[in-house]
Amino acid sequence: MSTNPRIYLDFNATAPLVPAAREAMVEALAVAGNPSSIHAHGRAARDLVEKARDKLARFAGRPREQVVFTSGGTEANALGVLGLAEIVERRGGPRVVAASRVDHPSLRGAVAVLIRRGWEQRPRRLEALEGVGLVTASAVNHELGTTVDIAALSAAARSAGALLHVDAVQAAGKIPLRTLPCDALVISAHKIGGPQGVGALVISADDGLPLIEAGHQERERRPGTENTLGIVGFGAAAAAVDLELWPHVAALGDYFEQSLLAQHPGATIHGASSPRIGGTINAGFDGATGEAVAIALDLHGVSVSTGAACTSGSTQPSPVLLALGLTREQALRAVRFSLGRPTTVEQIDVVLGLLPGILERARGSTVRRAQHQE
Amino acid sequence: MSTNPRIYLDFNATAPLVPAAREAMVEALAVAGNPSSIHAHGRAARDLVEKARDKLARFAGRPREQVVFTSGGTEANALGVLGLAEIVERRGGPRVVAASRVDHPSLRGAVAVLIRRGWEQRPRRLEALEGVGLVTASAVNHELGTTVDIAALSAAARSAGALLHVDAVQAAGKIPLRTLPCDALVISAHKIGGPQGVGALVISADDGLPLIEAGHQERERRPGTENTLGIVGFGAAAAAVDLELWPHVAALGDYFEQSLLAQHPGATIHGASSPRIGGTINAGFDGATGEAVAIALDLHGVSVSTGAACTSGSTQPSPVLLALGLTREQALRAVRFSLGRPTTVEQIDVVLGLLPGILERARGSTVRRAQHQE
Repeated sequence: MSTNPRIYLDFNATAPLVPAAREAMVEALAVAGNPSSIHAHGRAARDLVEKARDKLARFAGRPREQVVFTSGGTEANALGVLGLAEIVERRGGPRVVAASRVDHPSLRGAVAVLIRRGWEQRPRRLEALEGVGLVTASAVNHELGTTVDIAALSAAARSAGALLHVDAVQAAGKIPLRTLPCDALVISAHKIGGPQGVGALVISADDGLPLIEAGHQERERRPGTENTLGIVGFGAAAAAVDLELWPHVAALGDYFEQSLLAQHPGATIHGASSPRIGGTINAGFDGATGEAVAIALDLHGVSVSTGAACTSGSTQPSPVLLALGLTREQALRAVRFSLGRPTTVEQIDVVLGLLPGILERARGSTVRRAQHQE
Repeated sequence: MSTNPRIYLDFNATAPLVPAAREAMVEALAVAGNPSSIHAHGRAARDLVEKARDKLARFAGRPREQVVFTSGGTEANALGVLGLAEIVERRGGPRVVAASRVDHPSLRGAVAVLIRRGWEQRPRRLEALEGVGLVTASAVNHELGTTVDIAALSAAARSAGALLHVDAVQAAGKIPLRTLPCDALVISAHKIGGPQGVGALVISADDGLPLIEAGHQERERRPGTENTLGIVGFGAAAAAVDLELWPHVAALGDYFEQSLLAQHPGATIHGASSPRIGGTINAGFDGATGEAVAIALDLHGVSVSTGAACTSGSTQPSPVLLALGLTREQALRAVRFSLGRPTTVEQIDVVLGLLPGILERARGSTVRRAQHQE
């Protein structure tokens, strides 16, 4: 095991807290009070929440009134999809949702609720949105880094009279969110250097919400005492994002990918034929399972994943990769390297230096396991 | 305005963070990683979450497997009520819920969802649970501090074949939670000195969940990346609770209440004829609106409320007080003083000293306003 500092290449799972978020949260630990209370203790907490809302509004390029804080991307996806669906139903629109099998599990989960309620699901195709009431899309794929052309999708949805929900969790911090026109947009704090357990739904419609009637928080759209501390960290992280840094991360990703391919001619880069945001390299190496590679890298002090963190522990191949047309065996070879602003070229070179030996041993152990089974 | 440190008597809205929670959270700020990731960064976060789960399990007096972390009491009440309702439906039980109009808005909100789905609601009466599928109750009322005999309710529910969901948000930290037998129990971190935005559903049944299918977190019962930092603070706050201190808080509340009544013979203590947990004094003063009293106390450096924080800003009288039989005018006079472990007798004496002058001026302003309207 390496004695060097660990290398973190799993930013798509969670990005480490940025210093600005940490400092803002430590300061906010001193503020007591429920943001809904009208006394001075409460007003101090309310002030923290509303300043963070301003920061999120600027980050999203939308009016502050549209920002609804949630417990994360999963809840925001559910709230947005079910909220927009209710608006479609009230307007008498078609109970048909256009969605993709490769989107994030939380978005697919929200769509699954609609299906259970009698909605019909169709594949999401730009040219086939007639008769659709609601379109859902993850702007950037969490496993592959592939992008969906949201501007084109928005125009097609609008022309079909459909509403559009966009999961921007993996797009946030990488491209300007104002370039994603839609009726509901989802951001998660911990993917941009904020804390886990807080997110936002940015929604232009405000009928159709909330899912549960309870307290009056968030303009009646999301009940429950606000996660004041998490919201403070979220706001600070959003304000700390510098979009001009992303091309450098993407370039570092390109360098890693090209070096990988030069080093391992048999390697496959999944999603490489589609437009990608950069910084995410989903690779398959002949004869080695992704799990074996990820575990070996972990033992050498490098954190990577085989796919979505929220489905880790699953022995099933990634549904995203199966949808790309990979076989089960090919899909189980996937290793996802996802970079962030703190990633350095030195770290990339360390990983490139480790991979040949790791792959050799991983292939050996796969062969030994296969022989053992025979 | 007073230059003394502010006095906080709104613990039922939110309890200030206890030092143990603050320290644990500051320490946890250094841990990066998604608890679902299998690498070392992820395992460090997982370890924090699972140690907190152990603390919550001990606090609740239930097996750790039953603890499901949520974004707070509101979500936990929704998850528990809708989850238990689904179990009742699968078993072919009666789609009838016994509930009370005086329970917390988040519990009433969850019950309202059942009603929209075609369930029938009945008043919650110990002797009339035949034909009921689900019983819901807030063990301690948030506005009054009145208690429900959960042991008796549990026995009656069991004998009727009904499931029981208990909102223990205002009971936690005051009585041992193991004395509340039920199928689902709800706790909120920020009412026991933990951070806002995190809570737990402690549920013995595990079919019927989750509401949204997405990630595999919390044993498939509640998807979404865990609020690691909030959970750490929650665990630390739960471990720091010393139930032996509560009788002192209750005694301080009794002293306050008796002194109030001696000082203001016309004052009414709402809920005084029912069993109460102590520490919550909901008082009405003749001729003064609760809002005027609360605002005047705030100007003198004392934080109190007129009712539930989550409905503050509402000009409606408390539905809890109306259900007690108060008139609208009487209900609008309510001032809620809620004490916590940090409350001192010196603070109580300061408030007792302020009240006569404040009430005199509040009555004057009420009279002046009434004359102005004539």
